[in-house]
Amino acid sequence: MRTFFDFLPSGFTASDLFRVTGSQQLAIAFIAFIALSTSLSSSAQDLYDKKDIAHAKKAIEIAQKSDLAYDLIASLTSEVGPRPAGSENDAKAVAWAMAKLGAMGFDRVWKDPIKVDAWKRISGHADLVAPYQQHLAVAALGNSISTPAEGISAEVEYYENFDALKTDTSGRAKGKIVFVDNVFVRSRDGRGYGQAVPVRINGAIEASKRGAAAIVIRSVGTDSDRLPHTGTMRYDEKEAPPIPAAAISTPDGDLIRLIARERTKPGSKIAPLKIALHMKNSTTKGVDSHNVIAEIRGSEKPDEVIAIGGHLDSWDLGTGAIDDGAGVAITVATAKILKDMGVRPKRTIRVILFGNEENGLDGGRDYAAKYGKQKHQLIAESDLGAGSIYRMTTRVDEATRPWLKAIADVIAPLGIEWGENTGGGGPDFGPTVNGFGHPAAALSQDATKYFDIHHTANDTLDKIDPKEMKQNVAAWVAMVWLAAQADHSFSGPPKK
Amino acid sequence: MRTFFDFLPSGFTASDLFRVTGSQQLAIAFIAFIALSTSLSSSAQDLYDKKDIAHAKKAIEIAQKSDLAYDLIASLTSEVGPRPAGSENDAKAVAWAMAKLGAMGFDRVWKDPIKVDAWKRISGHADLVAPYQQHLAVAALGNSISTPAEGISAEVEYYENFDALKTDTSGRAKGKIVFVDNVFVRSRDGRGYGQAVPVRINGAIEASKRGAAAIVIRSVGTDSDRLPHTGTMRYDEKEAPPIPAAAISTPDGDLIRLIARERTKPGSKIAPLKIALHMKNSTTKGVDSHNVIAEIRGSEKPDEVIAIGGHLDSWDLGTGAIDDGAGVAITVATAKILKDMGVRPKRTIRVILFGNEENGLDGGRDYAAKYGKQKHQLIAESDLGAGSIYRMTTRVDEATRPWLKAIADVIAPLGIEWGENTGGGGPDFGPTVNGFGHPAAALSQDATKYFDIHHTANDTLDKIDPKEMKQNVAAWVAMVWLAAQADHSFSGPPKK
Repeated sequence: MRTFFDFLPSGFTASDLFRVTGSQQLAIAFIAFIALSTSLSSSAQDLYDKKDIAHAKKAIEIAQKSDLAYDLIASLTSEVGPRPAGSENDAKAVAWAMAKLGAMGFDRVWKDPIKVDAWKRISGHADLVAPYQQHLAVAALGNSISTPAEGISAEVEYYENFDALKTDTSGRAKGKIVFVDNVFVRSRDGRGYGQAVPVRINGAIEASKRGAAAIVIRSVGTDSDRLPHTGTMRYDEKEAPPIPAAAISTPDGDLIRLIARERTKPGSKIAPLKIALHMKNSTTKGVDSHNVIAEIRGSEKPDEVIAIGGHLDSWDLGTGAIDDGAGVAITVATAKILKDMGVRPKRTIRVILFGNEENGLDGGRDYAAKYGKQKHQLIAESDLGAGSIYRMTTRVDEATRPWLKAIADVIAPLGIEWGENTGGGGPDFGPTVNGFGHPAAALSQDATKYFDIHHTANDTLDKIDPKEMKQNVAAWVAMVWLAAQADHSFSGPPKK
Repeated sequence: MRTFFDFLPSGFTASDLFRVTGSQQLAIAFIAFIALSTSLSSSAQDLYDKKDIAHAKKAIEIAQKSDLAYDLIASLTSEVGPRPAGSENDAKAVAWAMAKLGAMGFDRVWKDPIKVDAWKRISGHADLVAPYQQHLAVAALGNSISTPAEGISAEVEYYENFDALKTDTSGRAKGKIVFVDNVFVRSRDGRGYGQAVPVRINGAIEASKRGAAAIVIRSVGTDSDRLPHTGTMRYDEKEAPPIPAAAISTPDGDLIRLIARERTKPGSKIAPLKIALHMKNSTTKGVDSHNVIAEIRGSEKPDEVIAIGGHLDSWDLGTGAIDDGAGVAITVATAKILKDMGVRPKRTIRVILFGNEENGLDGGRDYAAKYGKQKHQLIAESDLGAGSIYRMTTRVDEATRPWLKAIADVIAPLGIEWGENTGGGGPDFGPTVNGFGHPAAALSQDATKYFDIHHTANDTLDKIDPKEMKQNVAAWVAMVWLAAQADHSFSGPPKK
């Protein structure tokens, strides 16, 4: 398979690529685009109508010049900002989306009501109070209960990782604040997140089972910033009573680790670590929120849907730029560019801006319940930031795979590799893809830096490179258009 | 002149260098060290005794293997943490320094009392309240007065830079919160700081002269983190009454800029920006603090002093790792390594850990008053972080310059260039160097990333690369030793 890297200067490696600037990448991609445009692999030409391929290439050109996605994310992050599910800002975001989509001239724009549990961070503060006095940069995890008003002040029990906690039968956590250290390995595909995140989700249950008064974790992030990473966590009252759960920034985690290790050295006279934790949070159950949906109606097979989107809600600490204003902006811009090209697609193109992905996946479950039975030609979500797309993966059956490979050939000049058949459709489409077996694809974004920012106060507009965003939209318009036009009705997932 | 870059693989450029890891740099520096050690330029061999050069090279080897500086900075940042002048932690830091230096076996360790105005940050909060509601990451500038308890809520008057404010005769700032945008250009030598910082220091005076209710500036920093940069500011009650002064993080500055620019577009209906600012700070005048000083007494010319050091105080937001725990650790380790080598230097080596550099330079002024008249052979401070040293500059007369060039030859294998004769001795030594005309040198640290972190909560131990710190100490031991042994008594500054 020919990839982006085949067109790089000799001796230029993948790791070099990620040192060059966004504009250099775009320039290289453009040269590659020219080189490939007269030598497309036969599969695309064989499977798709020439006019549709030409249209896809024209859409790529338009997207590469369009500021629409960036303008949308700038508008959402500055005018609405953080929009946790069920908050006042969440309602503002729904109104923002209805107004923006409504003004774009889609065939249909509507909002589907959902109910969410609105968790709210009210205040939080933590200090290391022994053996040394230090302020800790802390954030409650989403869904965490409050501490008592007077706080929880307790000795710290240090665990090197979540496994150490889960396998602990010593009773040493009883009455303590459990601290769980963690390792998050940076990578382009973000796989380290899956390895690092379980302690955030289930740590409170395991700590509480062992009698802990609270759990504090090292932030699930790849950065070294004094900004804690929040994120959803859960309780299971059948297993253990709820205890407060928080994350401290990675530098603060380093401090705890340093002192804990110094204490274990022979002859150490360092006193035990003690943390004072104060948090006030609230949960209001059954608050109204919405999925916001727009459609371009298909001309020939309107009942077959290409479903794309991102989630409209965000965590409260940043302004929800990379997570997931970017996905909202990229997929809305995709549909708008295709609509404005003036050729109605054969199948229906639907953009879904999901409610409450972060703290319950309520929008995703509602979509599956309402539309899961519909025929879906292809499903794909953008929810890994705004970094350049470097790979296209799928989750389709044998008969469909060549049709997506042919799409990959068309977007290969953008620097996009053809990937495995193990991709998903994104978190919000999980209930639909998994529940109904629809075909899915993923345009994988470069997530090397994504988890530096993810779920922190640093998730702001300045983290988005407008040029990388254009590359994203360029890939999306081609994929969505060709999927809409294909003679073949896609199906999936792969047979086992 | 031969520099580090002469020893790099062919085709390897300076910009490549700053992509390689610290450990790779060290490895390359080590190869270069081997290559040069048999080919020192004649000047070093001619001017200094062979035994002294051999001793300096031995000291370099020891320093490159020593963990002492890193252990010191780890201890100071974890056991004391932030130590603003006149605070309880400042006193802890003085006690820490007395204990550490006292245990090291120097000939003399003492503390000189100084009086400082202890400024304290109690609380701070800011929101953009119009045209959109957004939280702003804010920090009071050092010395700022409080807002009234109910805060200051006022329209924002946007200035693109400090010049725009200083030249404004329109009256438009009256009753407003002045916001001053800023540009800080990243560079290895940190020169952008000098260009960016005046608005932090004098902005409140200029805004107050124009009737402003408060001033908020874009943080003086090169980062994109949601962490404001504090730093000292001043009032001049003869010119204008004090008004509250604060900095917001650069992403928040971007937000203000974006909205301010959108408002100026033709047909914009965006309402004026409004900020609500709450800050509580206090100042206690005449609080006790100290310079902590240690000496290795010279064997032949004990009255001629090589004075080195850093400042013990730090801002309150981080733990004062790069500013300036690093300088404390590097210069203390320098003296300790030379002492432990067991050969008494001809001249006296003195390490000064200054009090209140950040918010008054009280320690530096006290040192000049008490010791400025003493004969100083060489003066140098470490106060630009812990990045690798890439250049040695001086501020000496013609007769002395070759003696320092000869030192530069000895440390060149560490990747250190020979620089201009316009270097200083560092901020704390300013009153001594400028007031008494003593010879000075600077070992310039790579400050490319320094101003990402400077004066923020991000100034923590994890920002220090232990290997780069070793390279620092290696350069310092050689420079200090040879200056102590030189047959020539150094003098300066250059004649004009």
